[in-house]
Parts: sequence; structure tokens; C-alpha cells
Amino acid sequence: MRIDIISVLPDLLKSPLQESIMKRAQDKNKVEIYVHNLREFAKGKHKQVDDTQYGGGAGMVMMIEPIDLCISQLKQERRYDEIIYMTPDGDTLNQKTCNSLSLKKNLMILCGHYKGVDQRVRDLHITKEISIGDYVLSGGELGACVLVDAIVRLLPGVLNDETSALYDSFQDNLLAPPVYTRPEEYKNLKVPEVLLSGNFAKIEDWRHEMSLQHTQKRRPDLLE
Amino acid sequence: MRIDIISVLPDLLKSPLQESIMKRAQDKNKVEIYVHNLREFAKGKHKQVDDTQYGGGAGMVMMIEPIDLCISQLKQERRYDEIIYMTPDGDTLNQKTCNSLSLKKNLMILCGHYKGVDQRVRDLHITKEISIGDYVLSGGELGACVLVDAIVRLLPGVLNDETSALYDSFQDNLLAPPVYTRPEEYKNLKVPEVLLSGNFAKIEDWRHEMSLQHTQKRRPDLLE
Repeated sequence: MRIDIISVLPDLLKSPLQESIMKRAQDKNKVEIYVHNLREFAKGKHKQVDDTQYGGGAGMVMMIEPIDLCISQLKQERRYDEIIYMTPDGDTLNQKTCNSLSLKKNLMILCGHYKGVDQRVRDLHITKEISIGDYVLSGGELGACVLVDAIVRLLPGVLNDETSALYDSFQDNLLAPPVYTRPEEYKNLKVPEVLLSGNFAKIEDWRHEMSLQHTQKRRPDLLE
Repeated sequence: MRIDIISVLPDLLKSPLQESIMKRAQDKNKVEIYVHNLREFAKGKHKQVDDTQYGGGAGMVMMIEPIDLCISQLKQERRYDEIIYMTPDGDTLNQKTCNSLSLKKNLMILCGHYKGVDQRVRDLHITKEISIGDYVLSGGELGACVLVDAIVRLLPGVLNDETSALYDSFQDNLLAPPVYTRPEEYKNLKVPEVLLSGNFAKIEDWRHEMSLQHTQKRRPDLLE
């Protein structure tokens, strides 16, 4: 998989894309991630990428020209399965979307900033608009990191244990059951006995029951 | 505001917390952010912070002892308004929660990793469990960055324009209207005439109508 990210703040993306599992995935050649500095596509000596909005109002808008130049150049080089714009008014990201995007070959991600991009960028190039949740961030960069992490960890060979991701929350519309590790007792807090029983059928039943109870209590909407 | 973040991957948090608006907010003393490396609270020469889970199954669990030591030490130093655990099975983050947390004084954020933390950590210390969305990430670090960014940008004096955040998506349960900036025409794509009219009442009406239409089309749930 190849992922191209377009941003006015390439430095912000550095550590999330270069540490831990993202680093390992790239070292193993499971994914290539390229960050493009939008400012390099801006014209004039001030390398302007944003301007005030038509109609007045607070906040700057990202200009169409540098973005169009950057996206057009990348599109000439290869075919993209999706050109994604990270924006709070996009479709809400969920595990199903992550699973589906993890099967693609070439993804492009445009990070919005300030009040967002000129609407004509969206009309012209964007094939998918994604929001990571119902809250506003100072830019699309963290959203892009979240999306990339959620996708890349699903690529075969990235997680150490192939089966690990299958038991996560949301993969079966249930929240994960509680987990425990050593010691058996800590400050009078004990591990539930069933987990120490060695009876795997009973343990499976208990975990499923806990998942159900937890989901019913906290996220009944997932069970509908 | 003071924010303490506990993580096994402190390096991953570096660039998101040190660039752009987060940098400016700290430079202006609007927020102090401290990242604590959980491994420094681990015992033994291997500085172990995780172990296999009781009852069997793939994936490691973060041990209670190092986390308890770290949280207990911080709690001795000051009173925390919330001790937050980032986890996919937490309450889904929304703008209302961000607004409310932005009024607090001391926040602690624990980043989960692997299969999550020993359930007894949650029972013992955690006052709030937050998920940034219905998808699984390789750790709580990106979730913590998202939460911190969403909160800190709301602190008075952090954004350049005080009124800017008020017009974002979700602050009034409506998605933001489309925005445009120079040039008026680009590759035959034109800015809507109303935005060039100079008639601010008409512009306000148009923006509200666009917000409504956009919300109805993409997120009818927000209007219920």
C-alpha cells in the first residue's frame, strides 16, 4: 500500500508516522507513506496557501491552486483508489471503513486546516470525506494520523500476532471484554477466578457475556 | 490548565504536542503538558510494563503496578479533575465533552496500548473513559493527542481569533457551510455570487441554509 498525505504542517506528522507500529510497517515494506508539504506548491515569494474567505467572517481558507497543483501532479504519477479529505463535516470514520480502505493500493489524504479548503477543491478532486469524530481539531493532520494508523495496523504482517486485531472492539460490533494480567492479587484487587480456571470454554463464555454486558451498558446503539 | 499524559511511547507524542497551535498554546502559558514515560515506573532490569493475559488469548495487557505507581505519585502532587483512560470502549468523544473538559484545571490522560490496561487500573483510578471514535488504533497516544488538541484550542487566547471556534462544525449541532477564497474563478469553477454580493444579511441566510442542507444530507442524526 502507498499513502500520500498533503499538509501545511508536515512536521506535525513526523513522530506519529515514524514510531512504533507505523515505523515497523514501513520498515517491513508493508506500506510506503509520503508527506507532501503544500507550501512547496504555493506561488509567490510568500508561498501563500490560505486567504480570507469570500463573504467575510473569521478564519482563513486554504486556496485551491496549490492543492490542485499538488493533487494533479500525484494523479499523473499513479491511479489513486481514493482521494480523502479529512474534515469534521465528512462521513464519520468507523471500523468498517478502515477495513475496506485497508484493501486499497493507493490512497491520498488531504489535511484541511484553518476553516477548511476552498469548496472547489472538494468538488474537483475529493472522492471521500472523512471525519474521525464529532469534535473540531486545529487541523486535519491528527485525523490523517488516526486514519493511517487504523488502516495500516490491519495490513497482513504488520501486527505481531495475526489474530490480534480480530478480537478488538468493533470487529464484531461488541466492545472488548475486560483483560487482566499478573499479579493475581494487587492491593486486594483480584483477578476473576474464571480466568484462572484453565477451562477455556468457560472463559470464552465469560468473555462473551462480559462483552455483551459492557456493550449493553455503554454502547447499546452498537447492538441495534 | 495542566495536562499529564502517561504513555509507553512518549516519543510518538512529540511532534503533535510541539508543533503549531499546541506549541503556541504552551509558549503563551495557556497550558502545561507533561508526558510521563510509563517504563520509568516499571521494576526489574527489563522494565516490564506488559504481560500475557489471564485466561489466554492473543495480545499483551498493560500491568497494574507501574501505572498505579505513576498515577499515585501524580495524585499526591495535586488534585486532578479527571483521570482519563483513552480506550475504544470508552464514551465517544464529542464537542460537548471537549467544551466541558476545557474548563478544568488538572487533567491526567492514560494511554492504553496492546490489548489495553489491566481492568483493575480502571476500577482503581480512572474517572472517565474516552473513545475518539468507533475504530481501533494501535494505542491511546493518538487519541490523547486528539483530545488535547480539541480541548486546548478552546482555551481563551489560544486561537488567534477568539470568535473563530464558535463557528466551527458541531458548536451549534450544524455542519459548517462551504467556504471559498481567491480567485473568484479557477478552471471554470466559480465562487457562488451571493458571497461576492456584499449583502451580509443575505450571506448569513445563505450560509445557514447551506449548513442545514449539508447537515440534513450527511448527518441527519445531528438535527434530531
